[in-house]
Amino acid sequence: MDTKDERSAPWSSPVHMHNPHLDALEEDILYHFSLGTGTHNLQEMFGDVKFVCVGGSPWRMKAFIEYMAAELDMEDPNLEYPNICAGTDRYAMYKVGPVLSVSHGMGIPSIAIMLHELIKLLYHAKCTDVTIIRIGTSGGIGLEPGTVVVTKQSVDATFQPKFEQVILGKTVVRNTDLDQSLAEELLQCSKELKQFNTVIGNTMCTLDFYEGQARLDGAFCSYTEKDKQDYLNKAQEAGVYNIEMESSVFAAMCKLSGVRAAVVCVTLLDRLKGDQLHSPHDVLHSYQQRPQILVGYYIKKQLKAKAQRS
Amino acid sequence: MDTKDERSAPWSSPVHMHNPHLDALEEDILYHFSLGTGTHNLQEMFGDVKFVCVGGSPWRMKAFIEYMAAELDMEDPNLEYPNICAGTDRYAMYKVGPVLSVSHGMGIPSIAIMLHELIKLLYHAKCTDVTIIRIGTSGGIGLEPGTVVVTKQSVDATFQPKFEQVILGKTVVRNTDLDQSLAEELLQCSKELKQFNTVIGNTMCTLDFYEGQARLDGAFCSYTEKDKQDYLNKAQEAGVYNIEMESSVFAAMCKLSGVRAAVVCVTLLDRLKGDQLHSPHDVLHSYQQRPQILVGYYIKKQLKAKAQRS
Repeated sequence: MDTKDERSAPWSSPVHMHNPHLDALEEDILYHFSLGTGTHNLQEMFGDVKFVCVGGSPWRMKAFIEYMAAELDMEDPNLEYPNICAGTDRYAMYKVGPVLSVSHGMGIPSIAIMLHELIKLLYHAKCTDVTIIRIGTSGGIGLEPGTVVVTKQSVDATFQPKFEQVILGKTVVRNTDLDQSLAEELLQCSKELKQFNTVIGNTMCTLDFYEGQARLDGAFCSYTEKDKQDYLNKAQEAGVYNIEMESSVFAAMCKLSGVRAAVVCVTLLDRLKGDQLHSPHDVLHSYQQRPQILVGYYIKKQLKAKAQRS
Repeated sequence: MDTKDERSAPWSSPVHMHNPHLDALEEDILYHFSLGTGTHNLQEMFGDVKFVCVGGSPWRMKAFIEYMAAELDMEDPNLEYPNICAGTDRYAMYKVGPVLSVSHGMGIPSIAIMLHELIKLLYHAKCTDVTIIRIGTSGGIGLEPGTVVVTKQSVDATFQPKFEQVILGKTVVRNTDLDQSLAEELLQCSKELKQFNTVIGNTMCTLDFYEGQARLDGAFCSYTEKDKQDYLNKAQEAGVYNIEMESSVFAAMCKLSGVRAAVVCVTLLDRLKGDQLHSPHDVLHSYQQRPQILVGYYIKKQLKAKAQRS
């Protein structure tokens, strides 16, 4: 590999840890992965990882690794892609070549636990030049259902680009910037693919799916249809293209650990027009494949460019 | 059944909905359960439910229904307990007789989505006199690992008994009171069982497992061992016996819907002595069975008393 070329790449760096206590641990148990430094050779298992894709659903993350295996001509003839976290049901993890696929469940706390252990895993495995991309689903605002949104900034329920982390009972505000060049590269990939519409815009990240996203169909609802529309209109004026539940802590943690990160979510419905998903199952399924098609194309393109440089 | 006796029971009531918009829906899709009023006869499927047990792990909730089936002499000879939510991987749901067992994933947003759809399910099914109990795991403060904590009050990271729900970008504070008589009944059950130690105390509910619970072993840590100990000591002074990640929104939502609710969590470690789980797998497994043994005993006792009254 041409080291000079590699060093000139903007993401050439190790995964950063900001925890002086970890070196004092005899072994580090990644409890929610059912992995650990005392029981697994993490460097041997994960040292070659360059791309990590994360998403809420374990089924979708298994489908993604099968898709990537086919795209990269690395298919297992038996089509067996074992769940690396088979010892637990908290998260599922799959790997093919330099691509790792991990589920994270729903909501900020669930993805945060996963990311703490993923960042430690990548650090222990001495991975370098890692890109992490969340591929997910979302509700759109004023977009045709099926549109893919690459997140510019992740904003909170008041449309501010920040994530509030509570530490020892005190709130610390963290930056939710994502890698803008990576977002542009993904947009370019969509233009080359010509299969579906992709846009770059702000993503609102909420702590709740029903009242937190102004839905009228939760078990509780104390506001009117007009209140809802006013709120969503304000979100749209603030540049919000879609709403989901993980991007803010994802952006904050990836930034702290120094890895390139992007959020790529398809919109399953237009929230200005409704709250429930009435589209047929196969339509929703095809929408959900779009982020994986886009990110799969991007990874393939990156690996091809890297092979040409080396 | 003796109606008078039944009405004198403190939990004789329907499940309350506080949403005037729901009646206008032609059908209600419980998306994350892959169930709906247009596709399923919810009253036929769930009308007899009296006890709902919820917990983070789908495997544990399946084990719980198998355990309950044996306890209630309602075992399926083929030992088949199908996942009622098999159409999705977001949550798992099992049922035997009047007992429903549902997984909720990790963290407040994940359990909140489940509870919105569970409360709507119980409402559509016209269930009455429902008791909901969360059976989970937690970190203890100054307790012998394996101790079971029945929650008195769920408090936040500043030890206040409240849950902050963001609605249309504004924070609404909700009460996290749990049913004190139910907590006392559960404590009495533990005394009768004589298998493990059970206590009633406050439970701290956090939005994060690592920095949010003062752990020193996350990917990031900006505080010292002393800062951690000071924080946990303050929590102990505020009556906190254990720490987990779902009780506050669970208490708030159950209270709003008028169902009796309790939180029963086993402590897997004493956080004053460490952060990681070093206990052997079989020891942790036996600890995790304690909430289900206690709640199973309670349900059996309730059903026996009810049969005697009728």
